[in-house]
Amino acid sequence: MVKRYLRVTSLDTVHDILHKEFACTPSVEQVQLEDAAGRITAAPVFARYSVPEIHLAAMDGIAVNSEDTAGAGEQRPVTLPHAVRVNTGNIVPPAYDAVIMIEDVWIDGDRFTIRKSAAPWQHVRPAGEDIAESEMVLPSRHRIRPHELGALAAYGITEIDVLAVQVGLIPTGSELVAHGQLPAPGQVVESNTVMAAAMLSELGATCTRYPMVKDDPALIRDTVQRAVAANDIVIISAGSSAGTRDFTADVIAELGEVLVHGISIKPGKPAIIGRVAGKPVIGMPGYPLSALTVVREIAAPLLSRYGLPIPEPETIEAQITSTIHKEIGTDEFVLCALGRVGDRWVVSPQSRGAGVQMSAVRANAYLNVPANMEGYEAGECVPVRRMVGQREAEQALLITGSHDPVIDYLSDIMSRKGIDLHSTHAGSMGGILALKKDECHAAPMHLLAPDGSYNTEYLKKFLPGEDLILLCVAGRQQGVVSRDGITFGELPTHTFINRQKGSGTRMLLDFELKKVGIDPPCIHGYEREVTTHLAVALAVKSGEAEAGMCVYSAARALGLSFVAVAQERYELAIRKKYLKDTRVAALCDTIASPDFKEILGRLGGYDTKETGVWHVLP
Amino acid sequence: MVKRYLRVTSLDTVHDILHKEFACTPSVEQVQLEDAAGRITAAPVFARYSVPEIHLAAMDGIAVNSEDTAGAGEQRPVTLPHAVRVNTGNIVPPAYDAVIMIEDVWIDGDRFTIRKSAAPWQHVRPAGEDIAESEMVLPSRHRIRPHELGALAAYGITEIDVLAVQVGLIPTGSELVAHGQLPAPGQVVESNTVMAAAMLSELGATCTRYPMVKDDPALIRDTVQRAVAANDIVIISAGSSAGTRDFTADVIAELGEVLVHGISIKPGKPAIIGRVAGKPVIGMPGYPLSALTVVREIAAPLLSRYGLPIPEPETIEAQITSTIHKEIGTDEFVLCALGRVGDRWVVSPQSRGAGVQMSAVRANAYLNVPANMEGYEAGECVPVRRMVGQREAEQALLITGSHDPVIDYLSDIMSRKGIDLHSTHAGSMGGILALKKDECHAAPMHLLAPDGSYNTEYLKKFLPGEDLILLCVAGRQQGVVSRDGITFGELPTHTFINRQKGSGTRMLLDFELKKVGIDPPCIHGYEREVTTHLAVALAVKSGEAEAGMCVYSAARALGLSFVAVAQERYELAIRKKYLKDTRVAALCDTIASPDFKEILGRLGGYDTKETGVWHVLP
Repeated sequence: MVKRYLRVTSLDTVHDILHKEFACTPSVEQVQLEDAAGRITAAPVFARYSVPEIHLAAMDGIAVNSEDTAGAGEQRPVTLPHAVRVNTGNIVPPAYDAVIMIEDVWIDGDRFTIRKSAAPWQHVRPAGEDIAESEMVLPSRHRIRPHELGALAAYGITEIDVLAVQVGLIPTGSELVAHGQLPAPGQVVESNTVMAAAMLSELGATCTRYPMVKDDPALIRDTVQRAVAANDIVIISAGSSAGTRDFTADVIAELGEVLVHGISIKPGKPAIIGRVAGKPVIGMPGYPLSALTVVREIAAPLLSRYGLPIPEPETIEAQITSTIHKEIGTDEFVLCALGRVGDRWVVSPQSRGAGVQMSAVRANAYLNVPANMEGYEAGECVPVRRMVGQREAEQALLITGSHDPVIDYLSDIMSRKGIDLHSTHAGSMGGILALKKDECHAAPMHLLAPDGSYNTEYLKKFLPGEDLILLCVAGRQQGVVSRDGITFGELPTHTFINRQKGSGTRMLLDFELKKVGIDPPCIHGYEREVTTHLAVALAVKSGEAEAGMCVYSAARALGLSFVAVAQERYELAIRKKYLKDTRVAALCDTIASPDFKEILGRLGGYDTKETGVWHVLP
Repeated sequence: MVKRYLRVTSLDTVHDILHKEFACTPSVEQVQLEDAAGRITAAPVFARYSVPEIHLAAMDGIAVNSEDTAGAGEQRPVTLPHAVRVNTGNIVPPAYDAVIMIEDVWIDGDRFTIRKSAAPWQHVRPAGEDIAESEMVLPSRHRIRPHELGALAAYGITEIDVLAVQVGLIPTGSELVAHGQLPAPGQVVESNTVMAAAMLSELGATCTRYPMVKDDPALIRDTVQRAVAANDIVIISAGSSAGTRDFTADVIAELGEVLVHGISIKPGKPAIIGRVAGKPVIGMPGYPLSALTVVREIAAPLLSRYGLPIPEPETIEAQITSTIHKEIGTDEFVLCALGRVGDRWVVSPQSRGAGVQMSAVRANAYLNVPANMEGYEAGECVPVRRMVGQREAEQALLITGSHDPVIDYLSDIMSRKGIDLHSTHAGSMGGILALKKDECHAAPMHLLAPDGSYNTEYLKKFLPGEDLILLCVAGRQQGVVSRDGITFGELPTHTFINRQKGSGTRMLLDFELKKVGIDPPCIHGYEREVTTHLAVALAVKSGEAEAGMCVYSAARALGLSFVAVAQERYELAIRKKYLKDTRVAALCDTIASPDFKEILGRLGGYDTKETGVWHVLP
């Protein structure tokens, strides 16, 4: 009843099609030397002249004819009437074949006396020592490194022919606004071509972003025609799906042919590979992470066919912290936080939502779960592709558990110390589980026991006998967030937005409801769950719910009313063996620092009396 | 009798001094989003609004109130009068809480019928799913990755405060000419500030190169004053030594103070650390590799003190192929070619001459031989710092032995295949030794036995019983190179330039001399050695010698006369076990390719009849 993909094509087949169907001849562009770093040589580069062109003094001293110095010795000084004074880099005149260091010369007017003979060619930089005229400096297809610009300048090279793969990027969609403009409800900031242009430029492509085009086949067609004429590759952003306003495939079919519509990758399925005037035209889906995946898995390998050397990601084996299930037949790409915990690598999948760009911001690695698999089980060792260098990955600090906005501020301070804090919002009980499986460095939690104490009872129950320690981040206020001051007792008469099961806030809510005798089913919306304090506040701000429970800082960040319900103890549980780890030690120092207390004071709703206080489990 | 360094300072002490003496407060600069990739955030970046701001459809379909769908089933269709058609990304209107995929809807005009109930919030992207208003997107001191520009655009961020460390670079020296200008004898192209600017810019600094200044203390002083006023760090190129025209230290002392003059590093000893108006002023020595070392070991770590995250080089253990001796007390840095041979890493030191910039072009790694050591012995395992990624290092192909200009052309073709050919010019016998120690992938050689055969006799003698194979690169002509057609018989009456002992060319010369009964001591210059064919030709062209022996292509490259003496067999010896290695296989394929034969033909002096022919040792 609606048009659908007739069939999807596997990623391997897409690469084969790109290989077979396109010649991929790169353009060549001449750039000035100063602009050449990072560019790829189109042809070998040769030295224009020898360096040095003639013999030069390698030391400050005198140029001599070595034969004249024969026989000189401590007891037999020789005076050299024909020697000449030279500084380092000066020409050694013809007929001279050695330089004597000035320290070894006794000077009296223009008379030079020595007490040691000189070997032929000593302290002389011979012509061509560095390079000979016509010698090859760089081969083709070489990514020019910054320090090589010095050599190129010295060898007389001022312009360099480099590969120039021209990529035209066309944003389409009537809902788009340019970044910098505040999107009205239903409008979206055009960000995918910004991302694609930045990614492809870094790989050496020359990108042109065309003006945004509305969902009008004629306008899109016109722009695609212009872009194909001016570029080697054209990428059309959005409109690649099969909805009522998706025109990308039709436009490509009209101007050329659609080779592939629908690729068995996730995210990124509604992608298109087409050909117009012999050139590849890619339909890039509109979801940001779908677009990212198409750029990384399809456009980047295509660039390599034009000669741009695309670095393959480095792969390491890591233990996965949660299970990923997926359909057989689809290559799924999952963004992750990767870190070294103890003596092994651990990888935590991020949200798999194709619209959650923050997954890409937070990720330092990604997984490819291959088409022929149903997924990975938690605890398995799986191959992970690093998005950062080895050292940067080793600086990753993995925090799993209860979320609080101050974790972001901790991350800010840690970043100044060169440590990359990755926080997985799994709720307090999720933190306990991660700690039990030894999959994180620290687990933030606020778990209220029936006796009114926090955290220790849960650690004793779920991790008995383990060597753990608690570090207090802060006492913090939880309360009812609303637009107009709803109190805890008034909750049954308003729509509510809840936190997920296993979160400390959910447990606190249940505890407090029980205390005042309210039965959870009485609260409309009790079953609607989100996973962070800010998400609760936002649901209230947007009108989806009238009330929720969160920390003061989240309510305040969105300008909402907050009625305190309880103060709780927000602590980090840490295995003692990690206290000596430099990353964990830096985290603990940060929490105990005056800077951090000052931030807690500024955010509000935190009691810092116990901040930085250790609590050793009995 | 001349001024010298009073004392040199160790590299560690220099870092301590930089740490103690300078506050290193970075400047902050606002850049447009599109220019932000690679820059370092000066402060945390927050989302300006939530994304999405309101609930959106995650699928093409209909928006419904989930309560209205209760009870629908295969046998019990439900018609929904109030549903509305939505495409992916459209607003889910208030009072609707779910989306049903269009595939699951039977449409009749504006009547929508379903056969399955909808769960609340299914296929809805809730407000804030990606990010909530006010949430932290990036922490401080974060290097912005290209793909993050998409998220930043989507979250309403158009300008970003980034760190801006301003570095002023002042080239000094009366002998300097700008690159692009042909240097007259004794002139030098100013290349060190080009290199330093490119290297420091890549690390995130904002570099300004000042116009070249002659060796005049007043002019230098004036430029330093202007540069200090406008920059955070000033680097004065050259004049940092203690020669008669070295004014850098005096100028710094006059304007501020010299903290360090002379650092115990090699290359780079004549470096200066000074302070003018509270800012660090570095005197960078004039030899290109000294300058490079000072930029990498002193200026780059200094940038990190301003908050720019400077990636530390990754270190691996490799077996060193030649012995390095050095003075105790000096940190020596040696550029190297690193590659994986069999199951271990092998590292070959390059020329240690501070003027040989090609060492830096050819290097993919470097060693730091620490101050407290006398050096490394050949065969030791030593820590090596990689200058390229792990994968690129794994693609390095190590060739050690006799030099021929065609090796550069092989390197060019290999580079197009993504393989990084590193050639160490060790002469034919050096190649045999490297092969014996299993330190290279292939060894080019042309060793003439008394019976007139090539190579096999030497392999049998020096590598008895080893599983080797020879691949013919070409038959090639060796002959006498001169300006005016000197013949072999005329050699005793002219000055000569020789090749090093152990090179095949030297052995051929000796063989041919013996044949015609010329005694080597009769040849003036027989003891003067250089290591490549082009260096021989250049010595002839520059007038240093009247004749030498080299291959035709080298004579032709410099426009010299060539009188053929003999044709020899230039072959690659390879251990059979490496024939399956993809790098070696690609090399062999290349040699057998028509493209390569065409290049040999173009260069001239090569006989390609046997090119690509295998020679299995009996």
